[in-house]
Amino acid sequence: MTKPVATLGILGGGQLGRMLAMAAARLGIDAHIYCPDDNAPAARVSARATVAGYDDERALAAFAGSVEAITTEFENVPAATARFLADRVPVHPSAAALEIAQDRVAEKSFLNKIGIDTAPWRAIDGLDDLTTALTEIGPRGILKTRRLGYDGKGQVRLDGPQDAAEAFAAMAGAPAILEGLAAFEREISVIAARGQDGTVRCYDPGENRHSDGILRETRVPAAIDTATHDTALAMAERIATALDYVGVIGVEMFAMADGALWVNEIAPRVHNTGHWTIEGCAVSQFEQHVRAVCGLPLGDPARHSDAVMHNLIGDDIDTVPALLAEAGAALHLYGKGEARPGRKMGHVTRLS
Amino acid sequence: MTKPVATLGILGGGQLGRMLAMAAARLGIDAHIYCPDDNAPAARVSARATVAGYDDERALAAFAGSVEAITTEFENVPAATARFLADRVPVHPSAAALEIAQDRVAEKSFLNKIGIDTAPWRAIDGLDDLTTALTEIGPRGILKTRRLGYDGKGQVRLDGPQDAAEAFAAMAGAPAILEGLAAFEREISVIAARGQDGTVRCYDPGENRHSDGILRETRVPAAIDTATHDTALAMAERIATALDYVGVIGVEMFAMADGALWVNEIAPRVHNTGHWTIEGCAVSQFEQHVRAVCGLPLGDPARHSDAVMHNLIGDDIDTVPALLAEAGAALHLYGKGEARPGRKMGHVTRLS
Repeated sequence: MTKPVATLGILGGGQLGRMLAMAAARLGIDAHIYCPDDNAPAARVSARATVAGYDDERALAAFAGSVEAITTEFENVPAATARFLADRVPVHPSAAALEIAQDRVAEKSFLNKIGIDTAPWRAIDGLDDLTTALTEIGPRGILKTRRLGYDGKGQVRLDGPQDAAEAFAAMAGAPAILEGLAAFEREISVIAARGQDGTVRCYDPGENRHSDGILRETRVPAAIDTATHDTALAMAERIATALDYVGVIGVEMFAMADGALWVNEIAPRVHNTGHWTIEGCAVSQFEQHVRAVCGLPLGDPARHSDAVMHNLIGDDIDTVPALLAEAGAALHLYGKGEARPGRKMGHVTRLS
Repeated sequence: MTKPVATLGILGGGQLGRMLAMAAARLGIDAHIYCPDDNAPAARVSARATVAGYDDERALAAFAGSVEAITTEFENVPAATARFLADRVPVHPSAAALEIAQDRVAEKSFLNKIGIDTAPWRAIDGLDDLTTALTEIGPRGILKTRRLGYDGKGQVRLDGPQDAAEAFAAMAGAPAILEGLAAFEREISVIAARGQDGTVRCYDPGENRHSDGILRETRVPAAIDTATHDTALAMAERIATALDYVGVIGVEMFAMADGALWVNEIAPRVHNTGHWTIEGCAVSQFEQHVRAVCGLPLGDPARHSDAVMHNLIGDDIDTVPALLAEAGAALHLYGKGEARPGRKMGHVTRLS
């Protein structure tokens, strides 16, 4: 156990930061939220908050001086911000890990390099690249911006070469990537944690259902066989170890009809598909992440129950009265004011 | 459902307020802590905090103006404070309920009046009263201050008339009560909740082990038969209803050898013997209390697991490294600086 952390700095103020701050509090650790937005959900459950930009070096330096460790709740914290802070106080995950996850080309190159399968892909910098790529990796695919996409934003599906020009125009000049369509049987994810001593612990894979690019449901256990389960965990461990990662990492995978697993995406943070661990395990993904980034030993990820987690998105918030009245429903609301379409307002977990 | 509560005011800043604030946050409700102590554990997980005395009417009025509902984390909030606030915003539990629980004579008179057994008792205002009481209710008993005792403080055990003078002197002139010793088989407690519509929901009784007047362990289920279980719940419901109570109330009982149940104490608040509900139920006692005082429907108190909760008191904090490494141990630390003897530093719950 390294020097105990009295205050953990968290970059970002959304619901993931909010649940991290509450997990830190459960371990007696204060949270200090750093976030450009006033009145962020995470700040409202934290001992301290700084409202400033990620390029405000004076505010960043003061923030670093007020905490013993720093982590992030989202992968798009500028790597330069993480580097600036890491000169002053331990920052996990590292700027290098963030950089890989921030760029879909860097991410897929990294994965393939360490022997992990992905959908076929090509970097797309011009319409010519796209036309060529469609002939090389198949007529259908998804064109995505290399950076800053989430919840299906910055993505266009192509059903053939005829869609190329419009899809390319939708990227608005941003560097892009074409990913071949994965004809998967199911989407699963592994929530892995790696401690400062290199220990890796994985939760049981969840099986996920998305619609409109947004996660709707995670169910554990996933309907996969033991061999697939073991392979999925081994892949997550290989990724975390190759990144020299510290903290929780979410690894989304496609389970293919032939038994192969392709990694879709890695998220260097606590993950929406791991929310079920709050009720399903003695140590949630949030506490596990806090433990890792604070240099504490990882907890046991064993699951004591089966679980199904549903996100409450946009108007789903109108179901809250029914959820409050439903026996066995564990409800989480994020304290966001306005229920815009596609906005994650909360989630509900049911154990069985 | 009454007008939704955006911010819940909580009087008191200790660990109970801390866990209440986190439960409120889970439902998207901000907490505003009002407490005379700077840097209170509850304030560090809350959206707002006011540091002021319970008799500071200006601060109280501003506090009332900033919240839609108010509750307390401890029973010794002055009733005058609760009344002052209740003129401005709904306050639960009521000043009347607090007053009964604040005075052991008022509490026992109330209980006996509604047909609930207690240990035999006498109000003690002078040494003569004590001498007489010892002849009437038996030679052994516990002399307690009528007000402000907790965790065994303000209590002296008498093993016969020879101890009377010294015990009486220990009360230092404070009004007191003599309680006959209860030769109980076990101590149990019922955590009940009553909603604003009069609905009562009880968690399964816990079986408690105290030492030196401080709770060490709660275990559910308690080793009691079905009839005792049902009687215990019915008694808790009768108490909550007779008080026209809103919120969670802890009812400590002695299970006697002859099958009788004597109520030892009522606590008009979330209760240490209900901490196991955080892991053991979909809706914890903290969320249940928040629901009740905010006018939301009560949740289902069904228990999905057996549980054992241990308090971490004083030096027990030294076991934290072992607890962090223990599979299945759900650890809660309260963020208190100094581990003084007898101070509750945290707790750990194990499900089975």
